[in-house]
Amino acid sequence: MREGGAAAAGRKNGVLSPCAACKLLRRRCAQDCVFAPYFPADEPHKFANVHKVFGASNVNKMLQELGEQQRSDAVSSMVYEANARIRDPVYGCVGAISSLQQQVDSLRAQLAVAQAELVQLRMREPNSSTHLASSNHQANVGESLWSC
Amino acid sequence: MREGGAAAAGRKNGVLSPCAACKLLRRRCAQDCVFAPYFPADEPHKFANVHKVFGASNVNKMLQELGEQQRSDAVSSMVYEANARIRDPVYGCVGAISSLQQQVDSLRAQLAVAQAELVQLRMREPNSSTHLASSNHQANVGESLWSC
Repeated sequence: MREGGAAAAGRKNGVLSPCAACKLLRRRCAQDCVFAPYFPADEPHKFANVHKVFGASNVNKMLQELGEQQRSDAVSSMVYEANARIRDPVYGCVGAISSLQQQVDSLRAQLAVAQAELVQLRMREPNSSTHLASSNHQANVGESLWSC
Repeated sequence: MREGGAAAAGRKNGVLSPCAACKLLRRRCAQDCVFAPYFPADEPHKFANVHKVFGASNVNKMLQELGEQQRSDAVSSMVYEANARIRDPVYGCVGAISSLQQQVDSLRAQLAVAQAELVQLRMREPNSSTHLASSNHQANVGESLWSC
């Protein structure tokens, strides 16, 4: 009896096989299955993690609300989030955001120090033409920093 | 009839009120409700968004698997992720990760440029004692960059 349903039907045909989602949910994998293009049978953990974190019904709803050209990116981002939540059940991918934000803050501080040093060194420079050319370059570096 | 259940009971007592989760799920809010400490009745959207993205059953399971001292952080990160997914259904908070990663890459490149300029300027400096002191400082800045 456990061999019935879509999986067995897929094996009988020798070609059709249920996607990883339908296999896990033990349901028939229809021709227009919303999961099938993104959760192939040979990557069962991809769907298992997304199902564990978001739930198949929510993933189905979220995909149905998007255009087909956006679904692949949406699935990739959900898989990323789900894997992060399974690795770190407390912070999930918000942990990565916090760590990156700290890196941004630290790099900004280091860049400010380096720029302040550059200004001091240029003020001490005897060659005024080199000084001017270098100052212009420095201004551009500063502008691109704050436009981040 | 719609006034029955936990919400009405809460109002009758004048003190007890179901948490936002139990109110949305229309269930009795037990004394040891796992949601109640984190989803107060006066913040209904907080739970509604988490429920829409993760599903109440998954949130319940995730909280039950954590120690009580970790649950508050877990709820905060889930609320953050859920809000991000509702704002951006395609990328969710992975969009923020991608943007921060680009900022880190850009800042690292700018810092490398600034550090290369510092080295050039120091090599042209006539005063060797200032040069040495400044070089040591620069080495520290470099070390802290790559340890990010």
